[in-house]
Amino acid sequence: MPLDFSSDTSAPTHPAVLTALAEANQGSAPSYGGDPFSARLQAALMALFETETLAVWPCASGTAANALALSVMCRPTGAILCHEEAHIERDERGAPEFFTGGAKLHLLPGEGGQIEEQALRDALAALQPDFVHETPAEVLSLTQLTECGTAYTIDRLTHYAALAHEAGLTVHLDGARFANALVRREVSPAEMSWKAGIDVLTLGLTKTGANGCELIILFGEMAERASLLRARAKRGGHMPPKLRFLAAQALALFEDGLWLDLARRANRSARLVADLLCAQPGVELAYPVDGNEVFVRLPQDLLRRLSNAGATFYPWPGGSHRLVCSWATGGDTIEDLSRLLRDQT
Amino acid sequence: MPLDFSSDTSAPTHPAVLTALAEANQGSAPSYGGDPFSARLQAALMALFETETLAVWPCASGTAANALALSVMCRPTGAILCHEEAHIERDERGAPEFFTGGAKLHLLPGEGGQIEEQALRDALAALQPDFVHETPAEVLSLTQLTECGTAYTIDRLTHYAALAHEAGLTVHLDGARFANALVRREVSPAEMSWKAGIDVLTLGLTKTGANGCELIILFGEMAERASLLRARAKRGGHMPPKLRFLAAQALALFEDGLWLDLARRANRSARLVADLLCAQPGVELAYPVDGNEVFVRLPQDLLRRLSNAGATFYPWPGGSHRLVCSWATGGDTIEDLSRLLRDQT
Amino acid sequence: MPLDFSSDTSAPTHPAVLTALAEANQGSAPSYGGDPFSARLQAALMALFETETLAVWPCASGTAANALALSVMCRPTGAILCHEEAHIERDERGAPEFFTGGAKLHLLPGEGGQIEEQALRDALAALQPDFVHETPAEVLSLTQLTECGTAYTIDRLTHYAALAHEAGLTVHLDGARFANALVRREVSPAEMSWKAGIDVLTLGLTKTGANGCELIILFGEMAERASLLRARAKRGGHMPPKLRFLAAQALALFEDGLWLDLARRANRSARLVADLLCAQPGVELAYPVDGNEVFVRLPQDLLRRLSNAGATFYPWPGGSHRLVCSWATGGDTIEDLSRLLRDQT
Amino acid sequence: MPLDFSSDTSAPTHPAVLTALAEANQGSAPSYGGDPFSARLQAALMALFETETLAVWPCASGTAANALALSVMCRPTGAILCHEEAHIERDERGAPEFFTGGAKLHLLPGEGGQIEEQALRDALAALQPDFVHETPAEVLSLTQLTECGTAYTIDRLTHYAALAHEAGLTVHLDGARFANALVRREVSPAEMSWKAGIDVLTLGLTKTGANGCELIILFGEMAERASLLRARAKRGGHMPPKLRFLAAQALALFEDGLWLDLARRANRSARLVADLLCAQPGVELAYPVDGNEVFVRLPQDLLRRLSNAGATFYPWPGGSHRLVCSWATGGDTIEDLSRLLRDQT
Repeated sequence: MPLDFSSDTSAPTHPAVLTALAEANQGSAPSYGGDPFSARLQAALMALFETETLAVWPCASGTAANALALSVMCRPTGAILCHEEAHIERDERGAPEFFTGGAKLHLLPGEGGQIEEQALRDALAALQPDFVHETPAEVLSLTQLTECGTAYTIDRLTHYAALAHEAGLTVHLDGARFANALVRREVSPAEMSWKAGIDVLTLGLTKTGANGCELIILFGEMAERASLLRARAKRGGHMPPKLRFLAAQALALFEDGLWLDLARRANRSARLVADLLCAQPGVELAYPVDGNEVFVRLPQDLLRRLSNAGATFYPWPGGSHRLVCSWATGGDTIEDLSRLLRDQT
Repeated sequence: MPLDFSSDTSAPTHPAVLTALAEANQGSAPSYGGDPFSARLQAALMALFETETLAVWPCASGTAANALALSVMCRPTGAILCHEEAHIERDERGAPEFFTGGAKLHLLPGEGGQIEEQALRDALAALQPDFVHETPAEVLSLTQLTECGTAYTIDRLTHYAALAHEAGLTVHLDGARFANALVRREVSPAEMSWKAGIDVLTLGLTKTGANGCELIILFGEMAERASLLRARAKRGGHMPPKLRFLAAQALALFEDGLWLDLARRANRSARLVADLLCAQPGVELAYPVDGNEVFVRLPQDLLRRLSNAGATFYPWPGGSHRLVCSWATGGDTIEDLSRLLRDQT
Repeated sequence: MPLDFSSDTSAPTHPAVLTALAEANQGSAPSYGGDPFSARLQAALMALFETETLAVWPCASGTAANALALSVMCRPTGAILCHEEAHIERDERGAPEFFTGGAKLHLLPGEGGQIEEQALRDALAALQPDFVHETPAEVLSLTQLTECGTAYTIDRLTHYAALAHEAGLTVHLDGARFANALVRREVSPAEMSWKAGIDVLTLGLTKTGANGCELIILFGEMAERASLLRARAKRGGHMPPKLRFLAAQALALFEDGLWLDLARRANRSARLVADLLCAQPGVELAYPVDGNEVFVRLPQDLLRRLSNAGATFYPWPGGSHRLVCSWATGGDTIEDLSRLLRDQT
Repeated sequence: MPLDFSSDTSAPTHPAVLTALAEANQGSAPSYGGDPFSARLQAALMALFETETLAVWPCASGTAANALALSVMCRPTGAILCHEEAHIERDERGAPEFFTGGAKLHLLPGEGGQIEEQALRDALAALQPDFVHETPAEVLSLTQLTECGTAYTIDRLTHYAALAHEAGLTVHLDGARFANALVRREVSPAEMSWKAGIDVLTLGLTKTGANGCELIILFGEMAERASLLRARAKRGGHMPPKLRFLAAQALALFEDGLWLDLARRANRSARLVADLLCAQPGVELAYPVDGNEVFVRLPQDLLRRLSNAGATFYPWPGGSHRLVCSWATGGDTIEDLSRLLRDQT
């Protein structure tokens, strides 16, 4: 796939991950999480997140990770506040409703994929948990990077989490592109999660370079729900027997900060793509480029030229187009794009 | 793990599978099943099962595969007939109830993990779909190998499926150890599935040698439910983006009949283990050894000797113990067991 | 409760309904719908709706009736289009999500509680049933009277239903105040239901004058889902044994058009209340008064006066207040209101 | 219906209940439980059950009452121990599974509809809540009268509840025929509920003489789940607006012990029916007659004679027939039966 900007999920797995799979494949090991790799993952996360009060469950898909996380946070009679374009609303085919047993998503507006503060405040102020007819919110779910490729500032995350906690809600962070946001904000994993008030994080690694590995991380008091989460994972079919292979993927990516290097590389490529495109007449960014995604408004002729050259990327609601870079987006791809734009202008 | 007879899920992945993962990792590929490996898997299954009317969906866990399969076969207001020791009843933490939206499992007795014919006939005869208070069975779920390691004969499978069809039910086969049964019965995949009246097969490959790969195969008219199955898989979190890696595992195992070779090897090891144990005084088989599992009644002293030597295996309901062999159970393991038994008799 | 404009559900039951309960109480009768009253209800509805292809199931609550109706129309993997202020979204505590097994409500805007045509067209045009990530709408749910007390014209209902059908959806009408809309639009029950393209109607009678009786009516091909509806009603706890008492309530209200007389009376009272209030300085209607509900913007001093006099009614989102009349809103109540407004102006 | 022994649900409503409905129908009253009758019901139950720590929710059907009760006791990942013939297993079309979100029923055997002690002990001893594959029981559900018309002794109820509590379970009592058991055991409502260790009681009044009224009563610490129960009732469609009419039914039956008088009358009739039948050659009781149900084995010719005379009653699993008496089973009915038996012997 030349000029592949379709998604970071179309990228191959990073070779270090495949090597780790092979290394984890020496001899037999207890199944269902009793293996040494799963134990090492728990230890690695404690170090990485600078806290001992956390619990982890790995999943092979981000939809599973989000829905399972929400299922231990929100009762069937409750609701989840989220952005109206959130992945859990738009792209998960009702998984949150399914796993929670019918909880509702309560949608909030906001520019650039970020919930507007006043909308959040209004929703929290309107809560009447004792008014039995309405479904009261029990969780605030934020996304980092957002669906528009932007990154909340740590201040804003912290502020929103505090507002939610005051109102009695817990806070979930959909971190499908957590690494991309981390390197953009130049903060530690702890600073962008529990220190900011995040109670449960779904940390995506598939888009970063894994084969298929997303971690549900329960912080603080939420860690007490680990066995409930495990039971829900089991009945959701998300406890494959050879769990060592999920743990091994994460360990490989955390080793020597590889995951952050890969995220940095993807972000850098996105920056280059954005710059190349914006140098063309009539092109403008729809949203700031905070990570590895570029949302641009493209004139018809440029759109046609890109398509004719075989470039793959998707139209987005609102009239823009999304181009995504991954760890595997090579210099040659950027060069090809550059040439295409240069030659034909 | 020396003398590891704990489960075929504690075995490592076969090297050919890891090689296939690496080969599938060349460059980018469309996600969510649009890749060439997923297309090749569909073609491979049509050849293997000698029919063009089939649809497939791969999952990373057997619990997911069974529950998703049942969710497109049984309505929330219906029931599923199965053996009282079936995996879907005993070991899946309510996954079938969860995925079907609350259908009931209706349990039937029978020796050696095989449903007793009269119990099946009675259950079918008692069906009153119009009596709204009771939950009518809509599906018969059989298991091959059974929970007791035995294999239904093809005649019996065919007969039971016919009885179920006459009563208006569809038939599911939990084939977590399908390959082990195939080589025992010396029949073709088609003969042990759709030709015998099976409508939906969950074909397990993880215990055979995959990393984590179970195939839901819809035969005949059931194939029309493929898009519904896909939607349910998505909302169940069972559509990981890099699906090519699931397809690649299955392709590697089907190549040149590797899966059958591995199953034959595991069955042979089990036969040897059974023979070694049965040569000991006071040991008797609880069930015939049709596949790669040995269920034996062990005298206390022998049990102690095995445990002291570090052998791992599990006690089973009814007083027997289960020892499982896998493709990776080596000649050295058999030799170690032989020596242990010989030395200390 | 003097000056009670809180809701038509705070009204007493019409005496004719209680008399009917007593008459239905002669001797024993088969339970669960096998009684003669249930049979007579079916016949009465065929006459009333001028069609033989209908099936009916009575419920004691409107939430149950709506949710059960939707549960036989929409799969767990589907969505329901409705107004953003619809009762099924705002006031039913997630009942539609619960009964459908996790389907989503897709909210559409529109003035006066009526879905805006362009919003409906856009939603239908955007449907991509084969795009597995998104949840495709399978049902359009309309409300008549709407949440703002307005009545869709028959033309508009018919037009919307036709748009929905063209897109492959079925159409549900939440008719909690169906009678009030009927007398406003001066059409027959058939004209405001199946002739307009409604596939399933939940016809409310509790607000009209029943003790607790709402009918789910399946028209045309939907009538084939009657036994599925009955099974879902049973497992939802909505098949009380002495069903004759639900049927008897409806029969009493249909007798000699009593239900329409009661609705006319309630609408007339609302008209009078609206006129009295609008004669006051600074008062204006928030929405047209099409039925038995008055939505008005009230100046602070008038609001205070009404409250001081013990009048009960509720503030409404958007800044207006809702006053509801019922069959039992007497001339004395209107007179009291008139005097209060006259004296203190 | 002459010689109607089909069910106590085919009986008419007691006239005092209808009178109470009419009395509750004076003027308007707040809906959804804010009415004075609902308040009086709470007070009446505190007096009747001799405790202030209880909460109540009324439902119109027993299936709803049982399923809602269980839904606040058992998580979706848990199981409910009950008799293999329990109403919640056999006659509720999966309602417990639906309301709990997919919990499992774990069936136990026992003579006369009463769980065998050893089976209960074995099930409790086998619990491994940390073994994620299995579904651990969280609730013990007992039935009084049982499905076979027998009544547990208070000692046995108390003993079973203690065993369950020791194992960490809570205890539910399905009291569809609670009054019949009460008068048989000559104990107080408190003695047959919370004093015996029952945490949640579903107290049926419909079979006793109500129109449709079953009370879910939460005792002790369980009372703290009242608001959760209310929310689940609402989303289950079990919060009809005119709740005063449910409360009024219960109040009428509790007044001056009417409910116990009616139960005594029904039990007495059943005793007479049993005696009359047992005086016939070849007739024997299948179970002791502890309440208002008679289970008998009938010779073919007697069965034919009864049917020819138009008597209604049902065959029961195991070869017996069930004849049920209600408060309305008159002396004339008994006399007709007596004559029929006398004349034709």
